[in-house]
Amino acid sequence: MRSKGAGAAGPIERLVDALARLPGLGPRSARRAALALLRHRESLLDPLALAIEDTRRSVHACRRCGNLDTTDPCRICTDATRDAGLVCVVEHVADLWAIERAGAWRGHYHVLGGTLSALSQVGPEQLAVAPLLARVATGDVREVVLALNVTVDGQTTAHYLAEQLAAFPISVTRLAQGVPLGGELDHLDDGTLTAALRQRR
Amino acid sequence: MRSKGAGAAGPIERLVDALARLPGLGPRSARRAALALLRHRESLLDPLALAIEDTRRSVHACRRCGNLDTTDPCRICTDATRDAGLVCVVEHVADLWAIERAGAWRGHYHVLGGTLSALSQVGPEQLAVAPLLARVATGDVREVVLALNVTVDGQTTAHYLAEQLAAFPISVTRLAQGVPLGGELDHLDDGTLTAALRQRR
Repeated sequence: MRSKGAGAAGPIERLVDALARLPGLGPRSARRAALALLRHRESLLDPLALAIEDTRRSVHACRRCGNLDTTDPCRICTDATRDAGLVCVVEHVADLWAIERAGAWRGHYHVLGGTLSALSQVGPEQLAVAPLLARVATGDVREVVLALNVTVDGQTTAHYLAEQLAAFPISVTRLAQGVPLGGELDHLDDGTLTAALRQRR
Repeated sequence: MRSKGAGAAGPIERLVDALARLPGLGPRSARRAALALLRHRESLLDPLALAIEDTRRSVHACRRCGNLDTTDPCRICTDATRDAGLVCVVEHVADLWAIERAGAWRGHYHVLGGTLSALSQVGPEQLAVAPLLARVATGDVREVVLALNVTVDGQTTAHYLAEQLAAFPISVTRLAQGVPLGGELDHLDDGTLTAALRQRR
């Protein structure tokens, strides 16, 4: 373990290793984070330990939509002020959070858990596709918004889902593509510019 | 808490908050890290929880040198193969780890806990200066290497310590300054080049 932090004791090693596995933290920043935790026990280490214990005990995936919450079904699925007839399909919970932060959606969600990917051998059975079709089959859904990332895999998945959903008497829509707020035309890629021109209103 | 991740439950919020306080993680990467922890409980969340509990319980600062270890005095201070007459003074435990990784030091250490800083109002009494002088006063130390960062505060602190240590019959040395391994002269700052020229061998 010399490469990680020789001179560090076993538990510190393991803390550095566990932190280094998080996205966004390499071995070097994991060491810095571990040292910060050790130097500021009351303000950093204890709150993190508590939050992790709380999370482990009380947070679960919503069996209905895949959102993470302390209740199942989650608070979004049980929120009477939301329209259950509108379902926004996202790849990950992070996307659901992003849309919730924007505050522009008052419908429900469906977390797919990823995208179809030939390279990573992810097929429909690895994603929450069947549960989505089952939700739609109940007849309670009027519109499905495919809010997948504008990547090759995201758009392939959206295309696949649109085909699967074509059998049902519902609207299937996608997010508009175009110039982001504050976006300068000069700095936009050609694909975005083309899409923004083609979908002009 | 809308800005952090509305739709997320309380414990997730608190996990994101606790992670966002770590150096190197902003609110956005803290959210990604929290979601990764929640999605990979066995491989990420459980090992991190365990490592944190272990660390809280068993890691302490060495009363002699300030290193972090499961024993006190630490394993470096009690290592009979090391020369206790040589003491390497560093700002933080991270620096001690860096020197240990290099594997080029077989003496002991002394962790100052920072540098003198007029701006941040850090004086000698906020650092482990008195314990260093006390260690030297025992007569067991032959040489003190001031391995402080080559920053204004680091060098001010080294200068101050050198003055304090001048009263003792020991050598006080500093790390050599010069061209780093793999360093291209073309890309070096003037100060480093000047130092490398002046200290040429």
